[in-house]
This record gives sequence, structure tokens and C-alpha cells, in this order.
Amino acid sequence: MPWNRERVHNCRLASCNYSGLGIWIVGITLPNNRLDEILSEKMGKKKVMLPADEVDLATVKYQYEKIEAPHVTGFLLKFFVKLLEAPLIGSLIISHLKKENKMIEMLRNTVIPEAPMFKPEFPPQESETEVALLDEDGKPEERVELALKILPDYDPAKSWSADSSSPFRYWKIRDYAYAYRSKLTTPSIVAERFISAMDEFNSKKPPTPLLISYDPELIRKQAAASTRRFEEGNPLSVLDGIFMAIKDDIDCCPHPSKGGTTFFHEVRPVEEDAATVARLRCCGAILVGKANMHELGLGTTGNNPNHGYVAYILYAGIRLEGVVELYKLFRESYCKVLVHSRIWHLISEPVLRSDFQCFLAWRTARNPHAPERYTGGSSSGPAAIVASGLCSAALGTDGGGSVRIPSSLCGVVGLKSTYGRTDMRGSICDSGTVEIIGPITSTVEDAILVYAAILGSSAADRIALRPSLPCLPNLSSNESSDVLGSVRLGKYTEWFNDVFSTEISDKCEDILNRLLETYGCKTVEIVIPELHEMRTAHIVSIGSESACGLNPDFEDGKRVKFTHDTRTNLALFQSFSASDYVAAQCLRRRLMYYHTEIFKKVDVIVTPTTGMTAPVIPPAALSSGETDLQVSGNLMRFVVTANLLGFPAISVPVGYDKQGLPIGLQIIGRPWCEATVLRLAAAVEIQRREFQSHGNVKIKEDNFKFMMTMPDE
Amino acid sequence: MPWNRERVHNCRLASCNYSGLGIWIVGITLPNNRLDEILSEKMGKKKVMLPADEVDLATVKYQYEKIEAPHVTGFLLKFFVKLLEAPLIGSLIISHLKKENKMIEMLRNTVIPEAPMFKPEFPPQESETEVALLDEDGKPEERVELALKILPDYDPAKSWSADSSSPFRYWKIRDYAYAYRSKLTTPSIVAERFISAMDEFNSKKPPTPLLISYDPELIRKQAAASTRRFEEGNPLSVLDGIFMAIKDDIDCCPHPSKGGTTFFHEVRPVEEDAATVARLRCCGAILVGKANMHELGLGTTGNNPNHGYVAYILYAGIRLEGVVELYKLFRESYCKVLVHSRIWHLISEPVLRSDFQCFLAWRTARNPHAPERYTGGSSSGPAAIVASGLCSAALGTDGGGSVRIPSSLCGVVGLKSTYGRTDMRGSICDSGTVEIIGPITSTVEDAILVYAAILGSSAADRIALRPSLPCLPNLSSNESSDVLGSVRLGKYTEWFNDVFSTEISDKCEDILNRLLETYGCKTVEIVIPELHEMRTAHIVSIGSESACGLNPDFEDGKRVKFTHDTRTNLALFQSFSASDYVAAQCLRRRLMYYHTEIFKKVDVIVTPTTGMTAPVIPPAALSSGETDLQVSGNLMRFVVTANLLGFPAISVPVGYDKQGLPIGLQIIGRPWCEATVLRLAAAVEIQRREFQSHGNVKIKEDNFKFMMTMPDE
Repeated sequence: MPWNRERVHNCRLASCNYSGLGIWIVGITLPNNRLDEILSEKMGKKKVMLPADEVDLATVKYQYEKIEAPHVTGFLLKFFVKLLEAPLIGSLIISHLKKENKMIEMLRNTVIPEAPMFKPEFPPQESETEVALLDEDGKPEERVELALKILPDYDPAKSWSADSSSPFRYWKIRDYAYAYRSKLTTPSIVAERFISAMDEFNSKKPPTPLLISYDPELIRKQAAASTRRFEEGNPLSVLDGIFMAIKDDIDCCPHPSKGGTTFFHEVRPVEEDAATVARLRCCGAILVGKANMHELGLGTTGNNPNHGYVAYILYAGIRLEGVVELYKLFRESYCKVLVHSRIWHLISEPVLRSDFQCFLAWRTARNPHAPERYTGGSSSGPAAIVASGLCSAALGTDGGGSVRIPSSLCGVVGLKSTYGRTDMRGSICDSGTVEIIGPITSTVEDAILVYAAILGSSAADRIALRPSLPCLPNLSSNESSDVLGSVRLGKYTEWFNDVFSTEISDKCEDILNRLLETYGCKTVEIVIPELHEMRTAHIVSIGSESACGLNPDFEDGKRVKFTHDTRTNLALFQSFSASDYVAAQCLRRRLMYYHTEIFKKVDVIVTPTTGMTAPVIPPAALSSGETDLQVSGNLMRFVVTANLLGFPAISVPVGYDKQGLPIGLQIIGRPWCEATVLRLAAAVEIQRREFQSHGNVKIKEDNFKFMMTMPDE
Repeated sequence: MPWNRERVHNCRLASCNYSGLGIWIVGITLPNNRLDEILSEKMGKKKVMLPADEVDLATVKYQYEKIEAPHVTGFLLKFFVKLLEAPLIGSLIISHLKKENKMIEMLRNTVIPEAPMFKPEFPPQESETEVALLDEDGKPEERVELALKILPDYDPAKSWSADSSSPFRYWKIRDYAYAYRSKLTTPSIVAERFISAMDEFNSKKPPTPLLISYDPELIRKQAAASTRRFEEGNPLSVLDGIFMAIKDDIDCCPHPSKGGTTFFHEVRPVEEDAATVARLRCCGAILVGKANMHELGLGTTGNNPNHGYVAYILYAGIRLEGVVELYKLFRESYCKVLVHSRIWHLISEPVLRSDFQCFLAWRTARNPHAPERYTGGSSSGPAAIVASGLCSAALGTDGGGSVRIPSSLCGVVGLKSTYGRTDMRGSICDSGTVEIIGPITSTVEDAILVYAAILGSSAADRIALRPSLPCLPNLSSNESSDVLGSVRLGKYTEWFNDVFSTEISDKCEDILNRLLETYGCKTVEIVIPELHEMRTAHIVSIGSESACGLNPDFEDGKRVKFTHDTRTNLALFQSFSASDYVAAQCLRRRLMYYHTEIFKKVDVIVTPTTGMTAPVIPPAALSSGETDLQVSGNLMRFVVTANLLGFPAISVPVGYDKQGLPIGLQIIGRPWCEATVLRLAAAVEIQRREFQSHGNVKIKEDNFKFMMTMPDE
């Protein structure tokens, strides 16, 4: 029973004692803050926060992030983990790091007046205008058909007639639907293209393995069934025959769900599709396999050094992968590789052993826009496979930007729906308080179609959260752009501009200006206090919830099977106390208050999706992983709001930096208001397209163009 | 994100490997369980629970509680606390104790398939029959008037005419209301009675201080105002002029709220009445002061050794109490007292110093039925003052039986309403996940009247919990007893009978039989798995939430100001990890599932309220406190269900043991179904009354009889 009234009163006391305590309050994380010192003298260790509703926003100062943590990789990382896991020294290092980042001060020495909010709690919301309501309990196919009706007019035939010299473009779901229905191609033909493309990717230099569980035969079977349905003239929905990948932490039969680990499928066999995957299957989607990810989703780069490589054997056309025997077969050469670091040679050449043809490749997914760079994570594979043009859509999970970050870095669209909007049954992370399952697609309209298929809350969430009815923006109606004009965009400029390169904020700014010019969307300046507290509350929440689930295996000797990156994180997560967790939930309620107030003034909050474009992969990190909180900080700077507070948010591409690396804009909406977010994202996309043709950096096409060319060409 | 699916699957694995795993699952806390060993060999430390919906209740075995913890008091306790708070040795002792009680195994090595439930989450409930709906947003006076209408017919005039030789009985609120309205007495006359009674209590041997903040003048003022209202013929409600006490952790202006500590009012000044107290004031209740409690509610005996005594000075009729100067004044003699242990002498005689008359008395409240025994806690003072006949009602807080336990031990009625039913604003423990504010009264009908006045959820709880409308049983209707007849009572016999003396279970059993004979209430045998897990989940929840609120002051050097009992508890609470807390919430969901299933078969669950009657106060405990988990275990055995799962519950007296100590029956209801609980409690009360007159132990009257005799007698 946190003694909150005491806190409230303390605050009052404090606020009488010190004029402008507000400044101090939000400056609580600011080093060498004078008021801080004054107060410390007077009150010892104890800090006091004003109740959220008494904080004077005029006094709020933006705090530039200052993460105190070493960047370690290679053998140093292994040594660092050993230290962290050592009985005494480990806890000393960790409490030092937490002290440096003001965690102890914030969670143990600070009086937080608010009661804990353990899950997002939303007051009833105003209903959105110009929307189509969807039936959560209805058939996914029917929802998808309804979604199709609200899309803007589009004639695939026109795009189809474009000659092959036309610049690269992603095929939309409606393009495939048209091609299948007008017999220009069939799912089976596309399947063969897909399979050969996969091999091509794997034999690239360096190879770019997009799927970590993949079986050509399974794809051929699904494609054949879909082709038959088209021949019989009764496809299941517009998603019939559409190629989709599933992140490795979401169940998709018969593939194992390893969550990016090497062993998780052994303790957690897959018995059925996840709820969201089952809904896609109902719609006829072709599920190509499991896409790679940052181990257990506990990272944002997508780095995954497990085993150092993917190995597979092509033997009489049969592909064996990831089986233990195979690792045994390779161990010897693999060790050589590490010792003589002749790995690049090995990767580039197929290794011939007896009558097997074997390929080696690093597991870490590579950014289609720049193979030497990360995709971002944790949904690295899903973003990469969509960005490569191989799949129209992929499902990812987003507990700390894991859908939006890689979408932004790979130049595709990633939707994080409201907490509880999707049913998490059948995902490895099915019971956190910050996570959802969301679609990654190449266009906003494809995101709408896939979202319509997978949405629907679990029974438990309906009791706990009472979700508003899901709806979609009616983009086909003439009123849609009027509605758009009335949307007020909240922008916290200092935050918005806190990016690694101004190219990012400038590109996002440009789009906002175009939205104003074109539709009259006004940007309203807002202030969001306690962003550092928000990050702390988020890491404590997601970390503790992960640790809880992993403890039994951890304590049971599986610790060594995790990557060093994961082990570093878990050493931190296990150091949080129960009262830290509760304190973090008190911060959650404060931040919910601030945002509820903000959403009275604006309809959405806009930020860049990430504070940097795709970072380079340090070669050593491929084999041994890395931990780089500086990079994490830049990648996660804008994303955690939607996770801690459960708001819907989307990342939509707005252009490229000088190196041709994609930049994404994030749109955060009110709880349950996915429609507004999607409506605005669609408008951004239109603006970006025109923009593109105005002589911007042209994206490298050689990474793409697989499905777009047709056999008969 | 606890990996629950993995857990589910592990369970399935386990359950195929071992037939009858169900037994093991619930036997998980059973020492030397064979299957346990077998499994441990196979799976190392890791344990696996079956999903709650797969546990075979037929295989559930009742686990007798086995608490491994020393009973320490006196100087040994002080030494023990020093050890617990020492850097290394402390954590070693605590982790040993936790290991002994299987906490580590349960929270860190066990795979729990369920997702966490951080607060009670209730599916929509069937509405109750023969009830009167109350308006949460209406005026408390109006709710009370409605409540009056649903009470059974009663003619106070008849009881009034009873001669003074008639056996002791508590005056009901309706008796006072009648006496005031028919001018037989006035609130001011009763006030004088009350004040002289208070002095009488304080000068008893040993003195029994009932209030720790008390000012006769404040009482006289309120009484005069009430008397005036009666003279003018417009009392505010039936509660006008009714004497009530408020537990020390609920704000009641102008009294400080110390929560039973010595200093809390310094860090937490009181600015306004708590929400519930304000509602009582609207109804005209006379608030006599702050009743004693177990420090911070972190104990169940009511022991409170702060300063060793209450000291007050009567000087020219002015009473000074609890002021720092006073302690200084007494410190010298107080030390002597402790050193020469001549305290009893000091207590018995007023100490004369200069022209002051000073009284000394231990703080710990004493049981009116046996002054050498505890009242139970943590609402010790509220139960004592009501049981003494000095107040018609008192407000207590109940986070772990704190209203029901002392009510049971003191032979009065204590109501714990559904979690979120009362607004906790203005209570020290206003943001836990297990706590409510509830009334303690001498009769069920008084509990109904006070409950009607104080109920009403906070704005935040309305969003998070969506409470059903509050209602009361229509006891005045003829159909009421038919409705009663259809109530099915769930009884887990092995649990029901797990009491210190069979007198307790026998008395409760007798009442159940009489309910069957008289109304036809059937008792249905039920099984409740994982009671040990429930206790663990409860202690981790309430403990972590307390620790969170106390940390800033603790770390700020206030540690030494708490009692040794509190410090022992907090040493344990601070040792819980964040993942322990989350795991405890997973257990909460399991237990909610079991109880939801049970409530499909029965309407209420009946148990004894406590596993023992009032325990003796060890003399050493008066000065230095004590920690006795054996006693706590007996007192808390049946109460935590209603706290962890948020159900409404009531303790109603059913008789006395051979020593004349009261015994209480607990009735636990479905969420939001206070009406059913109150209806049944009223029936139990009627049965008990007839029962009494059948030659039972007659309660000692000399402890009571204050307000019942009128001046004119």
C-alpha cells in the first residue's frame, strides 16, 4: 500500500518551501540541478515529486538523454557478462549503472504521489468520425472485405501496364489480388519465384537469411491450395495467396517458435497457430515461415549471433536446416572459422563436404537498403523480408518499438495497435503489460488490410480493458480529407529535434508542412514532462515481466544458452526489486495523466520514429553480439510512450537520408483510435510519394525487385 | 512478458510424463513429496504448474500450514532486527526463511502458466434478487435513509423499556435515533457519558486506551451541534448524533494521521477528511477521534509498543497528548520504568509532577472481553471501542483481514466490501491492490447503515474496475427469507476445520446447521487448491506495495523510527524482486480462476474468521513488540482470499469459547455482491441471538455498559 497521500502532502510541503519546485520536479533526472542540491541538503536522500496535476508545464525543461553504459562486444562482452553474473561484483556493477542512470533515486528515494497503474487504464474515448466499424467477433475474411471497401480507388491494371524500366515499387496486396484474379499469375508461380529468391538471398555476399524456419514444400502446398481456389473462382479473401512471414516469437504451425533463441522450442513446443496467425490463415494468406528476431525481443538492433550462422544442406532437393546433427557436422569448421576468423571466406563459398552442398551465413538480418547495416529490431526478419519485396506483410511483436523501429530503418510501414487490441495467445510474450502483435507492410493500405484480419481482443482483455469497437478510416469517402483537415498534430519540438542527424527531423518536418499545405492539418506545440521517467518505467516493466517468465529456465541452468546480450539485460532485470516495479507503475499513472491532458488539445502526437537511421553492424558483433545502450537510446527515444501507455502508433516512411537510409515518421494516437492514426499515415504516404519524385535520393533497387517481374516478361 | 505459453506447454509435457501430476501440482508446497523429488531429478530446480483449468480438483489435498519462523520479542527482537538489517547476514537470514517457506521455489523456480492479474479483474456478475439499489453519486444521507427502509421492523421503545437488570446488550443505531428523537437523551448527554467513560478506561488497571488522538472539546462541539439539530427537528440522517471512531490511518480533521507510528503525521499532514469520513460527517455522525492500530497495519495482533505508553496531562481541564514536549517530560521516568521494570506500578498510579496530573498506559489496545489479551489487528482500536459499547461504529482498513480479524476477536461485526467499492482517498494506504475501508459495528444492521453512507468508488476505480451498482438486501420484504433459502454455502471442510481449537469450527458448524434448519440454506462441499500459494501471493503483493511507499522515508533515515515488528516485515518485503511480484500476480489469476469456478456452484464461501480466539499479550511484547508468525498464521488463515481477489466478506459473531472469548464466522461473497453477504450475516445474527439464550457462556458485562444506562435511570 504505497502511502500516496503522504506523497501528495510532502509535495505540497515541498512546493511551499521552494518556489518553482516544478522546475526541479521535472529536472529530477538532471545532474547538478541547483534546486536538487538545495532540496537534498534539506531533505537528505528523499526526493519529492509534485502530483502530476500540479506540475506547471511552463517550467518543464527538455532533458537530453544521457545514458551511462559501456558499449561492449566480442570477447570483452563475454567477460563483462561473467562479471555481471558473479555473486557480489555483479550486483555492485549493476547498482553502479542504475545509480548513474538515476534509477535508484527515481524508484527508491522519490516520493511519487500517484497510485500505481499496472496496465494502461483508459477513460471512455470520443468516437472517431468518418470511420467503418468492424466486428471483433466476426469472421476475419469479412472484416478484410469491409476494409477493402474503405480503401481509396485504385486501378492495378494501370500500374501493371508500367514497363519494366519503371522505377522499383512494392507490389500492393491489391496488385497481387488483381494479378491472381485476372490470371496474370498464380500463387504457385509466385511461390517458385519466392523460393528461388530465398536461395538467391542466402547465396549473396554476404548472405542475408530472412527466415530462420522455412520449408519450400510447405509454401508450395499452401500456394497450390490457393491457386486451386482461384481456379475454382472462390478465393477466401483479398489476402488469399498473399505471402506473409511470421516473427519467430509468434506460433505458426508446423514451425518451431524459438523466439530467436537456440533452445526455446524444446521447452515450448508449438501445438497450434497463434490467434492472429489463425486469422490470417482463414483469409488464405500463404505463411512462408518464421522470420528472424533479436533474441527474445530483448534488443532493438536485430543482432542475433546464435551459433554464428545459419547452416543448411541441399541434398537431392531436400533442405535440412537448424537440426542438431547439422551443427555437429559443422562444429569443426565453425571453430576453425572463429579461431582463424576466416568466416567471410566460408560465407562467400559454399563448403563442399562429401555429397552435401552446405551454406553458412550469419543469423543477424541485414538491412535491404544497406547490407552492412542493422535492420533494427526486435522484428528484424519481418521488416527485412517485407522491405526486400519478398512478402507483402509480416507479423511482428512490439513491446518496446519492436515493430516500428525496424519498419522505420527498413523504409516500410509498421503498426502498433492499442494495448489489448490484438489477442496475444500463441505468442511467446503473451502476458506483458506493454506488448502487442502488429503488421509490417510496404504500404499503409496493406497495413489496414492485415490489421483488419488480425484484430480482436482476448476474453481476459475484454474484461480488464473494455476495448472500444475497432474501426478503420473511410478513405474512399469524399469527407475523409475534410476530417483530415481537422486533425491537430501535437509536436514537442525539443524532443522531435533530439536526433542523431538533423536530416531525420528535417524530413519529418517537411512532411508536416506538406500536411498543413495540402489538408490544413495544424501542428500544435506540446510539452511532455518526465520522458526519462517514462523510459525508466518502461524498462522496469518489460524487464521484470520478461525476467519473471525466464527465471525458471534461467535458474534451471539454461542461462548459458542465451546470448550475452540477453544475459546482460537479464542481469539488470533481475536486479529490480518488487517496490521498484510498483514505483514504475506509479510513474506510469503520472505519464498517463500528462498524455490524457495532451490528447484533450491534440488528436495525435508526431515524432520521428527513431533518433537515428540504420546503424552499421560491427563485424565482431556478428559472432558474439554486442550491447550498446547509446544506439538503443537513439533507436528507442520516441517509441516507448505507445508501449508504456498502450496507445496506438504507426511508423510510416517519409524519405531517406543522404546515405539512402530510410527515415520514418511516428504517429501516436488516442487509445483505441487506430482509425485516426491510419488516416493520417495514408496521407503522409501520399505526400511522400509525390515528394520522392521531386528528385530525392533514389533507393537502391538491386536489393528488391523479386516479385514484381512476371514470368511471361 | 512472462512466457506463459511455454509454461502451458511445459505443463502438458510434464503431465504426460507423470500420471497424477495434478497431485504433485497442488502438492508443490508439500515437503518431501515423492513426485516432487522425481520431477526435481528430471527437471533440476524447475517446477511446473498445470494450467489452472487443467488441475483435477479430485486430486487436490489440503495442505496444513507450516510456517518456519521464530517467535521473538523483547531484546531478542531488537537484536534480530539488527541482524536482518545488516548488509550480508540479513539477506542470508531472509533468503533462508523464504526458502524454508518455499517462496523461492514458488516464485522463481516454478513455471506458472497464467498471465499476471495485478488487480482483481471481475467478469460481469449476475444481479442479486430482492435488493435495493443505491446511487453511488447521490448524497450519503439519502443512501442511509434508503438503507433504513430495507431494515427489518424493530421497535426501539420495547428494548428501551427493558429494566436495568436485563443482560448487557449493545445499543443499535436505531436505539440512539429513537432516544434522540423521543427526547429520552441528547447527543450532548451521551458525549459527557462518553468522555467520562474514556477517562474510566484510561484509569483502569491495566488502563485500556482506546483512542490515540482524542479531544473532549471537539466531541462536545459536534454533540452540541447535533443536539441543536434535534431540537430544531431537522437531524441530518439516522446517523446524526451517532458516535464513531476512525482508525489512525484514515484522515479525520483535525486529528493527525500517524498510522500507528510516532512520526508519520510530520511527513504527512492532514488537510481534509478522507472521502469516507467526509460522507459520515454529512450524515451528522460524531467523530470521536483516532483509534489505535498495529503500526502501519503491518500486523494482525494490534500490538503497538510505540513509546511504550500513552501519556497525557490533565491540567486545568485541558488535555495535552502525544506532543513531543510531553515525551521529553516523561523520558526520564520512562527510562527508569524500563530499566527497573516498575512499569506496572507506574501504570496503576497517576504520577504527580508539580501541578500536572499525568497518566501512563501502554499503547496496545486490549480486548474488552479479556484485557490481558489482544484485540487482533490491525484495526485494534476500532474493534475495541465498538466492542466496549462506547461507539456504535468505527471505520477500519482491511488489506489482510484488518477489519475482520479484530471484529472476530472482539465479538463484533466487520465488513470488508469489494475491492474498489469504497473510495480510499485520504487513507494512508490508498493505492494498494488488496485494501478497502470498512465499518466495524456491534450489529449487522448498523454495518448496513454505515456501509450505505461510506460506499462509492473513486473515479480511477470506475475506469479500471467498472463496479456493479451497490445494493442492499431488502430485509423488510417477505420474500427475503425465501431468497435466503436459495443461498448455497460453499464449505471446504478440511480448511474450515483447520483451527487452533475445535470449539471454533464447532460453533461455526452449529450456525450453519441452524441456517439449514431455519431457512433451508444448503451447504455445498467445495475444494480450493493452492491456499499456500494464495498466502504467498498476498504477502508479496501487500508487502511490495507497502515497501514502495515507505522506501523514500526508510532510505531517508526514518527506519529507526518504526517498531521492530515493522522493520522485520520491511526487511522481508524489500527482499522481494520485481519478478517475484509479477509471479505473485500470475498466482492471483490462478486463484481468481478457481474461485470464479467455485462461485458458479455456490453463492458464498463460509469459514471461521480466524483460526484462533484472542491470543494472550506477552508482557515483554508491550514494551518492545513481538513477531510471531505462528499467531499471524492462525489469525490470517481464512482472511486473505477476500483481499487478494477483492471479494466482499464479513465477520459476524457466532458465540464464545469456554473462556468466553468471541468466535466469528466469515462469509465471502461474489464480487460486488455485498447484499448477499449482508443478508446471510443478518440471518446468522438472528440465529446467534436465540442460540445465546440457550444457556451459552454469558459474556462479561463489566467491560461494557456505558452508553446503555440513561441519566434519568
